[in-house]
Amino acid sequence: MTGMMKAAAFIEKGRIEIVEKPIPDIGDNDALIRITTTTICGTDVHILKGEYPVEQGLTIGHEPVGIIEKLGKNVQGYKEGQRVIAGAICPSFHSYACQDGLPAQDGGCHSHGYKPMGGWRFGNTIDGAQAEFLVVPDAQANLAPVPYGLTDEQVLMCPDIMSTGFAGAESANIKIGDIVAVFAQGPIGLCATAGARLKGASLIIAIDGIDERLSYARQLGADISLDYRKVDIISEIMKITGGRGVDAVIEALGTQQTFESALRVLKPGGTLSSLGVYSTDLTIPLDAFSAGLGDHKIITSLCPGGKERMRRLMSVIESNRVNLEDMVTHRYKLDDIVDAYDLFSHQRDGVLKVAITM
Amino acid sequence: MTGMMKAAAFIEKGRIEIVEKPIPDIGDNDALIRITTTTICGTDVHILKGEYPVEQGLTIGHEPVGIIEKLGKNVQGYKEGQRVIAGAICPSFHSYACQDGLPAQDGGCHSHGYKPMGGWRFGNTIDGAQAEFLVVPDAQANLAPVPYGLTDEQVLMCPDIMSTGFAGAESANIKIGDIVAVFAQGPIGLCATAGARLKGASLIIAIDGIDERLSYARQLGADISLDYRKVDIISEIMKITGGRGVDAVIEALGTQQTFESALRVLKPGGTLSSLGVYSTDLTIPLDAFSAGLGDHKIITSLCPGGKERMRRLMSVIESNRVNLEDMVTHRYKLDDIVDAYDLFSHQRDGVLKVAITM
Amino acid sequence: MTGMMKAAAFIEKGRIEIVEKPIPDIGDNDALIRITTTTICGTDVHILKGEYPVEQGLTIGHEPVGIIEKLGKNVQGYKEGQRVIAGAICPSFHSYACQDGLPAQDGGCHSHGYKPMGGWRFGNTIDGAQAEFLVVPDAQANLAPVPYGLTDEQVLMCPDIMSTGFAGAESANIKIGDIVAVFAQGPIGLCATAGARLKGASLIIAIDGIDERLSYARQLGADISLDYRKVDIISEIMKITGGRGVDAVIEALGTQQTFESALRVLKPGGTLSSLGVYSTDLTIPLDAFSAGLGDHKIITSLCPGGKERMRRLMSVIESNRVNLEDMVTHRYKLDDIVDAYDLFSHQRDGVLKVAITM
Amino acid sequence: MTGMMKAAAFIEKGRIEIVEKPIPDIGDNDALIRITTTTICGTDVHILKGEYPVEQGLTIGHEPVGIIEKLGKNVQGYKEGQRVIAGAICPSFHSYACQDGLPAQDGGCHSHGYKPMGGWRFGNTIDGAQAEFLVVPDAQANLAPVPYGLTDEQVLMCPDIMSTGFAGAESANIKIGDIVAVFAQGPIGLCATAGARLKGASLIIAIDGIDERLSYARQLGADISLDYRKVDIISEIMKITGGRGVDAVIEALGTQQTFESALRVLKPGGTLSSLGVYSTDLTIPLDAFSAGLGDHKIITSLCPGGKERMRRLMSVIESNRVNLEDMVTHRYKLDDIVDAYDLFSHQRDGVLKVAITM
Repeated sequence: MTGMMKAAAFIEKGRIEIVEKPIPDIGDNDALIRITTTTICGTDVHILKGEYPVEQGLTIGHEPVGIIEKLGKNVQGYKEGQRVIAGAICPSFHSYACQDGLPAQDGGCHSHGYKPMGGWRFGNTIDGAQAEFLVVPDAQANLAPVPYGLTDEQVLMCPDIMSTGFAGAESANIKIGDIVAVFAQGPIGLCATAGARLKGASLIIAIDGIDERLSYARQLGADISLDYRKVDIISEIMKITGGRGVDAVIEALGTQQTFESALRVLKPGGTLSSLGVYSTDLTIPLDAFSAGLGDHKIITSLCPGGKERMRRLMSVIESNRVNLEDMVTHRYKLDDIVDAYDLFSHQRDGVLKVAITM
Repeated sequence: MTGMMKAAAFIEKGRIEIVEKPIPDIGDNDALIRITTTTICGTDVHILKGEYPVEQGLTIGHEPVGIIEKLGKNVQGYKEGQRVIAGAICPSFHSYACQDGLPAQDGGCHSHGYKPMGGWRFGNTIDGAQAEFLVVPDAQANLAPVPYGLTDEQVLMCPDIMSTGFAGAESANIKIGDIVAVFAQGPIGLCATAGARLKGASLIIAIDGIDERLSYARQLGADISLDYRKVDIISEIMKITGGRGVDAVIEALGTQQTFESALRVLKPGGTLSSLGVYSTDLTIPLDAFSAGLGDHKIITSLCPGGKERMRRLMSVIESNRVNLEDMVTHRYKLDDIVDAYDLFSHQRDGVLKVAITM
Repeated sequence: MTGMMKAAAFIEKGRIEIVEKPIPDIGDNDALIRITTTTICGTDVHILKGEYPVEQGLTIGHEPVGIIEKLGKNVQGYKEGQRVIAGAICPSFHSYACQDGLPAQDGGCHSHGYKPMGGWRFGNTIDGAQAEFLVVPDAQANLAPVPYGLTDEQVLMCPDIMSTGFAGAESANIKIGDIVAVFAQGPIGLCATAGARLKGASLIIAIDGIDERLSYARQLGADISLDYRKVDIISEIMKITGGRGVDAVIEALGTQQTFESALRVLKPGGTLSSLGVYSTDLTIPLDAFSAGLGDHKIITSLCPGGKERMRRLMSVIESNRVNLEDMVTHRYKLDDIVDAYDLFSHQRDGVLKVAITM
Repeated sequence: MTGMMKAAAFIEKGRIEIVEKPIPDIGDNDALIRITTTTICGTDVHILKGEYPVEQGLTIGHEPVGIIEKLGKNVQGYKEGQRVIAGAICPSFHSYACQDGLPAQDGGCHSHGYKPMGGWRFGNTIDGAQAEFLVVPDAQANLAPVPYGLTDEQVLMCPDIMSTGFAGAESANIKIGDIVAVFAQGPIGLCATAGARLKGASLIIAIDGIDERLSYARQLGADISLDYRKVDIISEIMKITGGRGVDAVIEALGTQQTFESALRVLKPGGTLSSLGVYSTDLTIPLDAFSAGLGDHKIITSLCPGGKERMRRLMSVIESNRVNLEDMVTHRYKLDDIVDAYDLFSHQRDGVLKVAITM
């Protein structure tokens, strides 16, 4: 495989553009994927705005659906032409951190074996998925075959937002009969709502300020949707729970306000599961925290990756437990990805997720 | 049982004094304990200073060792004259919160069944243990017989600081081979150090600024003790761990500085187990928190109570796994408790814990 | 409250009959419930057949729905006339076993505090629910108010089979994306199927030999139903799972054959969650057990009780997550309970559960 | 590296002998280790006796301590000449089973990704450690550097028996204050005893029939040692626990009798953690199992492997938490390994473990 390909590269703050790059070579443990569909994540917008630094010229994107173009010689059990996805986080699974149960914090071959967010490589430390071709490192651990019969758009949410949103519900340790509140119903919050439903919560309260998102939240499993423009969220939730508070709360935005509100609606002994990417220091108010005596748990989760995670998520789609296809509200060609970024970053036209095809 | 008894009561901010009170009557589910030894807790000092509000005239103290004087008619399986302790936290074990695994947040008969710190009753919402007699509510669930052969001072730490300190190690989910740091080596931090050792940590780093406490920490199981007056704690711990950070960190003081330092020495994916009673809002620095993407866990624990907890803790003492007797550095009669408070609240003379006898 | 009441009592092997008994007095921690609806359990049939010994004259039954007739003086937060249920297992929540997280094995005031199945009192060690009135001991911990709007039959499965079946799914530690097999689709197996669905299994395989039960299993969440009369269950499941085996298997019958088959379809490292009441020694075949090297888990669960458990289960019903009303296939008056036992014990006429009213 | 080496190979039932083999080549993900010390395991004796089948000519042994002779080109962060160990179980960490938390049941590149005991490769499916050189597959995941200052014999137990014995204590979910019984004090049972101590058990009862082993058990942390030749183990343990039974029991032999006795001394709701390699079907007696209603857990564990596990175990040795050196009772040269097998398999001369050097 030689020749050139198109890729959406970070040029400078405010500019992600289509550039030409050589189709990359692969190492013995890698695979080359011909991307068929990918999408844009909120994190990519942070990169675009220069809020999260990446190297100039790096190809952006971490949500690949594609076809195996070429396999490194050590990668076994797959064949070229096979349809696959790979997680946004694609750890080595070899490092100390990985074996310690923390693959998302994979430190690779470092002597100490941990690196914050180290499992996130696509569009962060190596070239990403918004391109015609993508190199998947540690392919044996990260290539997940797409079950027969599922379309690209059906599995497009698996690499990142479904894995992240579900992790929010999993870290919240939701039990049968729990009452759960989910703050913000963007793509990840919506997946957290679906995840809370899947784990057996008996009352799910979704919070947002956009009608379509609240409506979609109810479709994905929320019993009650609250619009923060119309009601005081904290007093409303305390009323709904008879003054008790919720068993678990999932924060899916990344602001002081949602974090703090989340803590204030939590029962003593409850879990605040945080998914948001924060951009400022956070304050934990003394009273909402019972001065440290409330048996509170605050747990953050980075998107779990790896082929077993992807296999499980696709099995959830395949068995119709959750349907996330409708989350694709817009479709663009890779050539037009600058427009797609424009739409997505300004949240115009009710956009949730944008499918990018070749 | 009628007549009068002496009790240390909260009079007003700055004044806890010995007063005369009637020996209390008991209900059918209560027990009356003749206190033989009790002690003063840091929380009591907060009460003394008016920082934690209690009702005027309330008897203070929540660490009882004594003898059963009288049993309510529904309390079975005990006999008068038996030596017992009761946990600082003495939940009903009947409420929704208790059955939900959160007895320390016991809401009693409230319709919703949760109350922050609701399991803490002695010297908080009912008369406490710094008196000649104490009523133990829900005695069937809270009276724990002292094993034959153990002295009062040997079990004096069980009701509160041993239970709290060990809970810090338990909530930190310490596994065999973990590296653990414990910030502050007051009575609770020392117990957390002992608890980390008991749970299999292979490297325990104790931090404090008082030589005697650091020395005692090593005696209780710390491998390394660091004096914050002499070294930069964060860079020292990162050096010790080869840049990796610790698997778990226990905060046992309750200040922004220790909380923040604790977070900064934690590996990605590690657990910050917080025991401190905070008196201000807390700040989580963005960088130390990996913007919410570091798989961090922050878990607070209130002292577990109940007779099963007390039984287990006393079995640890009985089998010589841990020896906390030496923590009693001073001894006072109840009549002289004002002096004891003065010594303890000013941390004079190397005081750790003060035994109060009748 | 004085006078006489009707009750279904165990007379001798093969005879459960309606007798007259005095309406019982209650103690200070008890409540008297006027039963409005109850049902017959497979365990009651074991008692009828003399396979499980109880005292002569004991009132049978452990699945009460009713109205509070009278409250002991220590029972607070309820009022007479309130509609309530109580779990089949009604532990004291005071004993060592209860505080140790094992309320179903409640040893009461025994010195050691454990008794196998000790939490099961109704129709076992004290008079049960197949009567006009029932005494609920430790009522503060065991009375669970029925949410407004739910009928007796909607909550009739909560005290036993829903709690048991869901416990089977909970002990199996089902995770999102798991493949789960449930052996036997009687009332408890059906609830286990519903529970597996609630906990996020993405492929549920229900096994039975009765068409109606297999059909109902699909209605409650099974993706695939297998009739052991028509296919070889083990080879069929291995085929479905591509030779991998299931992540978790729930045994809901109590025979060597189902237990052994369950083990044979389990992946290495999987969990066999056993709910069946066995009547013979069990054999673990060496090969199916990988000689003890397969990282297998075998976990048995007795029906969890207590008001918090009941509250959660009723909230699942209230929020329409699961509908178990259709499980009531037949209805009888208490006076005709002998006929009801006859129908139920012979599994005639497609019976699943029989509602007994007054 | 070319030339010939000596290796202990399985010739036929009853014969393991030293043969000459070529020093093996390595693949890109492998490492070649020059063995400095290894040992013989009970499993090797099973192989010798023909009870566990392996290919004719296979090099036996799975407990390597050595020096890196050569690194595959993909293996980073190590250097030749470095002292390392590798676990007896050396999984790929890439397969579905590995990512599912079950590396010992690693199915490699199989489509389904699970294989019972599949992580055990040395001396089972590939040449093992009783040789001058050993190929470590997936070396990036499996090579664990020996901390400076530790001798070969100090870390010789880490690859298998320490990891297995500790896993027995970990799977038993031992909590602070637990009472634990360990059946059989061979090398693995001794390590389980040490592991139970490390995890905070407050009363450890060790059972065996050999004085030296019982004595060594007490040295490693047992509080009580019971000789089955002298007392009735079940009644003795029930007496010690006041009729309650133990919280957890570890089976470390692999016979019906120890398994059954283990179950009989277990409290309701307790965990039986099984480490033994069984050679017959097992029977679970109905009464000891409370007919399936006792909330029992039976959990089997295969030796955990991987470099992180090895690192943790060596850190436990390094910090003097446990000293297993004394377990080496005899020393042989590789050339004399036939004699070593003879001694070890007949348990002559108080042998516990035999160090084999080059």
